[in-house]
Amino acid sequence: MSFFLSVVPVSEAIAAVHRLGNAMPAETVPLAEACGRVLSYDVRADVNIPGFTRSVMDGYAVRASDTTGAGESVPAMLTFRGRILMGQNADQPVKPGECFYIPTGGILPEGADAVVMAENTEPFGDEILVKRSVAHNENVLRYDEDFKKGEVVLPCGRRLSVQDVGVLAAVGCADVPVTRRPKIGIISTGNELVPVTETPKIGQVRDVNSYVISAFVREHGCIPVTYGIIHDDRASFDAALSQAASECDAILISGGSSKDDRDMAAAVIAQKGEVLIHGVAIAPGKPTIIGRVGTVPAIGLPGHPAATFIVLVAIVRHLLGDMTGNSGPEPVKVTAKLAMNIPSTKGREDYIRVVVKDGIATPLFGKSGLLNTLAKSNGIVRVPAESEGFETGREVDILLW
Amino acid sequence: MSFFLSVVPVSEAIAAVHRLGNAMPAETVPLAEACGRVLSYDVRADVNIPGFTRSVMDGYAVRASDTTGAGESVPAMLTFRGRILMGQNADQPVKPGECFYIPTGGILPEGADAVVMAENTEPFGDEILVKRSVAHNENVLRYDEDFKKGEVVLPCGRRLSVQDVGVLAAVGCADVPVTRRPKIGIISTGNELVPVTETPKIGQVRDVNSYVISAFVREHGCIPVTYGIIHDDRASFDAALSQAASECDAILISGGSSKDDRDMAAAVIAQKGEVLIHGVAIAPGKPTIIGRVGTVPAIGLPGHPAATFIVLVAIVRHLLGDMTGNSGPEPVKVTAKLAMNIPSTKGREDYIRVVVKDGIATPLFGKSGLLNTLAKSNGIVRVPAESEGFETGREVDILLW
Repeated sequence: MSFFLSVVPVSEAIAAVHRLGNAMPAETVPLAEACGRVLSYDVRADVNIPGFTRSVMDGYAVRASDTTGAGESVPAMLTFRGRILMGQNADQPVKPGECFYIPTGGILPEGADAVVMAENTEPFGDEILVKRSVAHNENVLRYDEDFKKGEVVLPCGRRLSVQDVGVLAAVGCADVPVTRRPKIGIISTGNELVPVTETPKIGQVRDVNSYVISAFVREHGCIPVTYGIIHDDRASFDAALSQAASECDAILISGGSSKDDRDMAAAVIAQKGEVLIHGVAIAPGKPTIIGRVGTVPAIGLPGHPAATFIVLVAIVRHLLGDMTGNSGPEPVKVTAKLAMNIPSTKGREDYIRVVVKDGIATPLFGKSGLLNTLAKSNGIVRVPAESEGFETGREVDILLW
Repeated sequence: MSFFLSVVPVSEAIAAVHRLGNAMPAETVPLAEACGRVLSYDVRADVNIPGFTRSVMDGYAVRASDTTGAGESVPAMLTFRGRILMGQNADQPVKPGECFYIPTGGILPEGADAVVMAENTEPFGDEILVKRSVAHNENVLRYDEDFKKGEVVLPCGRRLSVQDVGVLAAVGCADVPVTRRPKIGIISTGNELVPVTETPKIGQVRDVNSYVISAFVREHGCIPVTYGIIHDDRASFDAALSQAASECDAILISGGSSKDDRDMAAAVIAQKGEVLIHGVAIAPGKPTIIGRVGTVPAIGLPGHPAATFIVLVAIVRHLLGDMTGNSGPEPVKVTAKLAMNIPSTKGREDYIRVVVKDGIATPLFGKSGLLNTLAKSNGIVRVPAESEGFETGREVDILLW
């Protein structure tokens, strides 16, 4: 294997993971647990919504034309015909010059086409003074105005938000068809790694990546399955990789930080399947491996936690998106002015951590091994491969995290 | 009770919920489950990180001064002294004119102060040709450069991100002190409500709010506890409210949409505790109730799902933030140009749903009862009480959701 990685552009790496990732099969979950999951089918309205024309205010059901020209000084005077109770029809239609008290959500009586808010009326004996005119359909929700029976209310592939859960409740979708959460095997390799519960000796570091990767995949709708720390031992790595491939839908390998560890990982993946890519033109994150073990996608990540995180955001996210049927919580983009120059090397995508505040993006030029800048930053600027960097004051797109 | 609500400004409503909400006590969770939780104590580094000066590249450990002026055409020539193995010290210091091969993560040997990337070198017999100069500390991570022992790495009140989990792993925080998730009781009232599994008859609507509120509070780090649908029955409501107050840390009541239901809710809350506010100058969402049952905060929400959602975002969020010890996932703000005028009434905060795309915000002037605009929108524009609206083309702040 050559010493220098044969690096490919980020776009090629993304294309490779798209070829590897397949959507999980569907399962059904109760509506109360559906928020954040991804729809595996279109969901359609089972009824017209609303199923009847209803008031959206407490007030008086009227014929709008009866209120034309009404105002504080010249109120319209309408005959009060009674109160409509929730869920019940009026006992008679609204004839010209008449009105009914109607609660919010009440069934609009026949003849009426609008509701005057109670605040704009005043009782006057058996009459109601209307001090503001209303237009046709004002303060009412018409039959089937929200959703029509049979209409797709939410499409397949939608990641369900809080509001979407409300839509599903409205259309009676108590059991929600969603994509099964993929199981992602996580293997940490590296002779220098010790468990989080141990105090590292000189030359050792704690296994940060298992936790970062687990939290990331969980946030993207997957189930992390950890296989512990594998030291420089090809047989152990081989065994862990086989077990993960038999139990999981994809495998993420936190690469040992050294070239020897990475070469070992690439060699074992090649033997059990195929290495498609070894080396991506991304900084940080160059020693990324993309391959498969049998048919199970396997991605080797760099050893530095900060570099790992960038590769998760820039590349692995697309794999998890394909598998969950959705691109996951799409990173939010904002634009901000750069507080200082960002130099970059042509031919390589640079991801620079930044702190964005009040429209100003301040780059944190931490070395890729630093965790503190990763935790302090709230986003990244991507410098495309064809650019030599950005100048101070330039408006740049920021992916927030 | 007066027919017209005595409305207060949104700021006063927020101040009231801040007075009601107290932070939950702490508990400890395993690091693997800590993402998204809120720290209940400052977390400090238990060791210096890194615990030793290490290389961040595969390459050669050198004295930077030995490489001064080195380039492709005039390489520096250094004597190769051997390979440093991961986790092990070099067997001798680096003297002037010497170098060691060092893997990423390897312990920088005494005497060396920088690493030349392997790509910038070439073996030449027993010598190494260095074709690029390096500066002092280049490609190394110094002892304690990331975190110093005893330093606060993450503060109390921090909502833990994926990256933060990495920081906690690095400082050996295997058991994480977090705020207990508050239990939020949810009661749906309204004569017109039927369960999601039923097909509504004329005059009925499905209980959308229980699901929207549950999903919202879960997304804000709380545990929803639902108490079902209470019809127009004061005794049942009274019993449900008592049970919720004894079992939960706060109560959210999805108010019946009619004034009668709301008055009933306010009366029962007043009898069991206190009604602080009944009516907020917010649209949609005016008939909001803020009070307490005993010492348990109790908030009455409007019956319309879309109005409920706005009150959750604008007001309830602050209560949940106080209780979880953090303001939760802070809504992301972006600025965009308005595609059309937004008229508004002075003295009332208007929340208008918008679709933001490519820097343009298009208002969706759906009636507050519509779910489809809520699901289609990706944010809201807040029109402050003192404003009469915004004109087309104006740059406005959008809260994304």
